[in-house]
Amino acid sequence: MAAADALSRIGLAGLAVMGQNLALNIAEKGFPISVYNRTISKVDETLDRADREGRLPLFGQYNPKDFILSIQKPRSVIILVKAGAPVDQTISALSEFMEPGDTIIDGGNEWYENTERRISEASSKGLLYIGMGVSGGEEGARNGPSLMPGGSFQAYLNVKDILEKVAAQVKDDGPCVTYIGEGGSGNFVKMVHNGIEYGDMQLISEAYDVLKNAGGLSNSELADIFAEWNRGELESFLIEITADIFQVKDYETGNGELVDKILDRTGMKGTGKWTVQQAAELSIAAPTIAASLDGRYLSGLKDEREAAAEIFRREGLKEEVINNVGVVDKKRLVDDVRQALYASKICSYAQGMNLLRAKSVEKGWNLNLGELARIWKGGCIIRAVFLDRIKKAYQRNPALANLLVDPEFAREMVQRQAAWRRVVGLAIQKGISVPGMSASLQYFDTYRRARLPANLVQAQRDYFGAHTYERIDRPGSYHTEWSKLARGATLSR
Amino acid sequence: MAAADALSRIGLAGLAVMGQNLALNIAEKGFPISVYNRTISKVDETLDRADREGRLPLFGQYNPKDFILSIQKPRSVIILVKAGAPVDQTISALSEFMEPGDTIIDGGNEWYENTERRISEASSKGLLYIGMGVSGGEEGARNGPSLMPGGSFQAYLNVKDILEKVAAQVKDDGPCVTYIGEGGSGNFVKMVHNGIEYGDMQLISEAYDVLKNAGGLSNSELADIFAEWNRGELESFLIEITADIFQVKDYETGNGELVDKILDRTGMKGTGKWTVQQAAELSIAAPTIAASLDGRYLSGLKDEREAAAEIFRREGLKEEVINNVGVVDKKRLVDDVRQALYASKICSYAQGMNLLRAKSVEKGWNLNLGELARIWKGGCIIRAVFLDRIKKAYQRNPALANLLVDPEFAREMVQRQAAWRRVVGLAIQKGISVPGMSASLQYFDTYRRARLPANLVQAQRDYFGAHTYERIDRPGSYHTEWSKLARGATLSR
Repeated sequence: MAAADALSRIGLAGLAVMGQNLALNIAEKGFPISVYNRTISKVDETLDRADREGRLPLFGQYNPKDFILSIQKPRSVIILVKAGAPVDQTISALSEFMEPGDTIIDGGNEWYENTERRISEASSKGLLYIGMGVSGGEEGARNGPSLMPGGSFQAYLNVKDILEKVAAQVKDDGPCVTYIGEGGSGNFVKMVHNGIEYGDMQLISEAYDVLKNAGGLSNSELADIFAEWNRGELESFLIEITADIFQVKDYETGNGELVDKILDRTGMKGTGKWTVQQAAELSIAAPTIAASLDGRYLSGLKDEREAAAEIFRREGLKEEVINNVGVVDKKRLVDDVRQALYASKICSYAQGMNLLRAKSVEKGWNLNLGELARIWKGGCIIRAVFLDRIKKAYQRNPALANLLVDPEFAREMVQRQAAWRRVVGLAIQKGISVPGMSASLQYFDTYRRARLPANLVQAQRDYFGAHTYERIDRPGSYHTEWSKLARGATLSR
Repeated sequence: MAAADALSRIGLAGLAVMGQNLALNIAEKGFPISVYNRTISKVDETLDRADREGRLPLFGQYNPKDFILSIQKPRSVIILVKAGAPVDQTISALSEFMEPGDTIIDGGNEWYENTERRISEASSKGLLYIGMGVSGGEEGARNGPSLMPGGSFQAYLNVKDILEKVAAQVKDDGPCVTYIGEGGSGNFVKMVHNGIEYGDMQLISEAYDVLKNAGGLSNSELADIFAEWNRGELESFLIEITADIFQVKDYETGNGELVDKILDRTGMKGTGKWTVQQAAELSIAAPTIAASLDGRYLSGLKDEREAAAEIFRREGLKEEVINNVGVVDKKRLVDDVRQALYASKICSYAQGMNLLRAKSVEKGWNLNLGELARIWKGGCIIRAVFLDRIKKAYQRNPALANLLVDPEFAREMVQRQAAWRRVVGLAIQKGISVPGMSASLQYFDTYRRARLPANLVQAQRDYFGAHTYERIDRPGSYHTEWSKLARGATLSR
């Protein structure tokens, strides 16, 4: 056990790769840290790494009691274990030795309501609680993640100096961390971040699909194009790694690029699903994020898709290039796809931001959307230059109804909409599925229309269910005997 | 109170219009029925109607005890009150006087888990329980609804003769009722029915929008076209009432048709939302149904849409007819839209059916999809000739993976896909939003492709999260150090 004069500033329990990396990051920033894991070999593994990576001030503990007692009061303990029951088990094991005023910080991808339950359980023992979203994957955890802590503000203040050093740093824009809000807001914001991440990945994969299958681009050309895009308005971590991916040779067979050998069946965790369910719950349209979730579900049906392709082939429908759309101008296609991707992304972020606002209103979290865009500029998977523009849009107008109607974004959408329509139109002609780009475009074309055909839907609902309707020209609620009047009309014609 | 020798065969509590109509329907089929409502005037109102509509054997009761005691044992009591707490209150008031072996039948749009909770509560008192979906609106309740009873099979047998008489009757295909399955299956099936109904209404409204705003069709022409469509493969209740709607003049102002004066802001109840959330929960892609829910949400933002239209107009983007697509051939457009609507509908039903199957597997309900299509052929809002084809598809192959790959539907999709692509493409060029048709088309183009760009998504996930991937050419799970290898590749080029 650490001597009284050598207590650690903070503790971290749960030493899978993410936990190890975050602990090493904290130690590297000069904060002595105690670490603990139920499987003891992970403690030794972490100690070895701390030694190898620069004799960092990281101290291993082999049981919950020694672990907790080795930390300065008021104690702050980060736990990084699998969301759900393991979090409860870890809290139970550790809190036995904790004292009023100490803090538990759960860094997992937890469902926000579980965090709210734990806040109240912790509170009954005088403990403070934070649910903290951590984005950036393993590499981010080690070198600077984006951190989204929500819960007790006092607990946040206790570790603010640590989090601000540990988080990714963005030039001229500070560390990628801020106090998110009360309750489970940190987890909720991380959940929506992940939903947006799903959208980005789906949209990039569609851009790839169109360029490859409509434009005939090789992996080498794709690598160059994504690298080029990463020097412009699309500059972002996901575009950057996509450029990398197309360069990697298939070292297993020595033939061609690795990307072509990867099975097209996508895994997922729960956050994308939760985002879609919460959007439905809060009456927020989030079709691009939903399309990316559906994309993953349908990708999983590989056997069914292969069978379907064969059935439709027998009926005369080829898998790709259904219609002869003439020779595609590669250069123009690349430029169009870049614009389509950018415009589609704006719509996806607009959906995510509106979901955050709706939840903030429901829960009284008072989320600062511009500040969220700021802390996503570095460290996290969706980090992108473009987030600075979102930050500024909400700084200009914190009450902005939708990103699309911010004057700058509105202008950008108008500039890009013709190219965007060409890309989606071409993909539809060629039978290349672009559910994400298409959902974004439909979202744009729905949101910007003063008049939708929902008048017909209201008429139908009033016809069969007497649900009543309103009129555009006078106040009040109306019900019509449609069937009778229509029969009258037929007779009089 | 009814004399001992004149006990009613069944009881019904909750006499809003749906309850009144269903009670009158039951009485009209020759089953003496007791009715009760907490607000007593509704009882008298129902008695008056029973008298006026043919001296039907309907008996009013003014308190729960007399109501229950007026029914033959084992008693069956239908309740038709607002879903949620009112159902619990009604059960509590009535069950006090019920005896083991008696049955409660909840006919509301209840969340299936509430029904499952009540089944177990009822069971502890020896009572049987049914959650019964009732579709067809007020008119259906009076003249023949589609009924979806799930829960106790014994309870179903107790009222089978009544339900089979009361339900809509389809020529050569029997009454629109069947025992759905255990637990909350009746409510779940009704929920998905409503989700499909949302989809149908959205798709019809998009067909209207394209015909009106791209084709320039008048309401009178629309009335004729929907009436014509109702004589073909699209024949259905919703198409029929749509033809009616376009004929109704605006009797308030005397100018033009009423449909044009209706506010384009759509109301909704909870079932569409639940359908979308359950689809996400069960890993089922249901983008058309989701698009219809989003369509309602976005329709609700009327003020925001008007503001957005103005902002984009100032940026040079007109609300409609963005691109000059030349003169549209009306006749061909009408024919294309009919095909697009039909193909889009098939995709929407495929989604709903797959959601039902996934839930059936999860819960062990053993749902018979063909039989569900059969009982939807009459009485309910989505009733359509086309459901007979769905019934037959599942009869041919109960294990059908997806409606789209049934040989007949596959052929129909191939025949219609070119027209469908033309319609969605035209709408995109003109800026007319068609989120439902577009979601269906993307669903089709995703499902029928053996190879999707999900390989890139998996590569990205492995790059930043070490999530691993599979290969198409050999077994096993792989992880690659993408960043290192890409840098190597860059150096060696």
